[in-house]
Amino acid sequence: MNLRILSKSFNIASKSRVEVINITYQVRDIISQEDLKNGLVNVFVKHTTCGLIINESEKGLISDIMSFLSKIVPYKAGYAHDRIDDNADAHLKSILTGNSVTVPILNGELGLGTWQSILLLELDGPRERTVNLTFLVD
Amino acid sequence: MNLRILSKSFNIASKSRVEVINITYQVRDIISQEDLKNGLVNVFVKHTTCGLIINESEKGLISDIMSFLSKIVPYKAGYAHDRIDDNADAHLKSILTGNSVTVPILNGELGLGTWQSILLLELDGPRERTVNLTFLVD
Amino acid sequence: MNLRILSKSFNIASKSRVEVINITYQVRDIISQEDLKNGLVNVFVKHTTCGLIINESEKGLISDIMSFLSKIVPYKAGYAHDRIDDNADAHLKSILTGNSVTVPILNGELGLGTWQSILLLELDGPRERTVNLTFLVD
Repeated sequence: MNLRILSKSFNIASKSRVEVINITYQVRDIISQEDLKNGLVNVFVKHTTCGLIINESEKGLISDIMSFLSKIVPYKAGYAHDRIDDNADAHLKSILTGNSVTVPILNGELGLGTWQSILLLELDGPRERTVNLTFLVD
Repeated sequence: MNLRILSKSFNIASKSRVEVINITYQVRDIISQEDLKNGLVNVFVKHTTCGLIINESEKGLISDIMSFLSKIVPYKAGYAHDRIDDNADAHLKSILTGNSVTVPILNGELGLGTWQSILLLELDGPRERTVNLTFLVD
Repeated sequence: MNLRILSKSFNIASKSRVEVINITYQVRDIISQEDLKNGLVNVFVKHTTCGLIINESEKGLISDIMSFLSKIVPYKAGYAHDRIDDNADAHLKSILTGNSVTVPILNGELGLGTWQSILLLELDGPRERTVNLTFLVD
């Protein structure tokens, strides 16, 4: 069967300045609805003040992620970009964590390990955010 | 229409030890010249002392990125690799920021958000650098 | 020739809590055995306490990578996740370094630069780890 491209997107409304949002369910839903079998999905957030990571969605760890990022990139610590916008810290955290992940799809399932979730890091909310999914699949 | 692979590369000459170079234009030019419609492009820098990120190309922020990286990874701070080469800091900054990004192509356009640019971080220049582009497109 | 998907995996047994393991050879072997010509390979580690990076496999630098990560993310530094598991530092290091890389394949060769290797970072070993490879190739 030939490989094909499928592009999808969805929006997420964050509720506070910093927040971790598990978007694994949305990706799994599309794989199931579209009956996708094997390939890759690129999950891409179209913003410069969000992060996108794969890790464990555990309450304590989520609090550790945000504390750690705020410790190494403090809010309003005299950044040049803050003269334009008060969110240089959010851009720097986004650069450290990345804005995209590429994940295998295998036998109709998202190829994540037991403890892996796809986590959107809101770093300068609350805002409406757009996530693009590009599937290369058979 | 079937998916196909297209490989391209271009060179960039950096002008100082550390520098941020916006390479979005080069990627957009190829999409337009080759009339690519939908898929993904992997942008890959073939060096261990460069970074490749997606963020905002704003003068203040660019200065913040380099200041931040130099604060958390100081130059010549007693690294073991500095016995061979004086650039361990550049390798460590490259590891933090990554050397590749994968970006959607949608309806003939690079699928970046309004404020997103593809930025090459020169961390141990000035040098000639090679960027490889791999398009999986229809 | 049409693009196709090939999924492979292999296991790695790490020997200490933190360790850098060069897995470039395993990826090259599959490209050669399967006679793959052009495309991309996504290398994905299915764990939340490993990193996956591309950089130089030099003894001094490898020691610098681990020292640097331990300096910015100290072990057992009062993390919330440590109430469940003593490995919050390993999760945070994994988030900083990422758990996947996507690499070009060009004319039957892995498209790495002279000094680039694919390095698995064991951050909470010793353990058996699984690496998934997804090839999109002609």
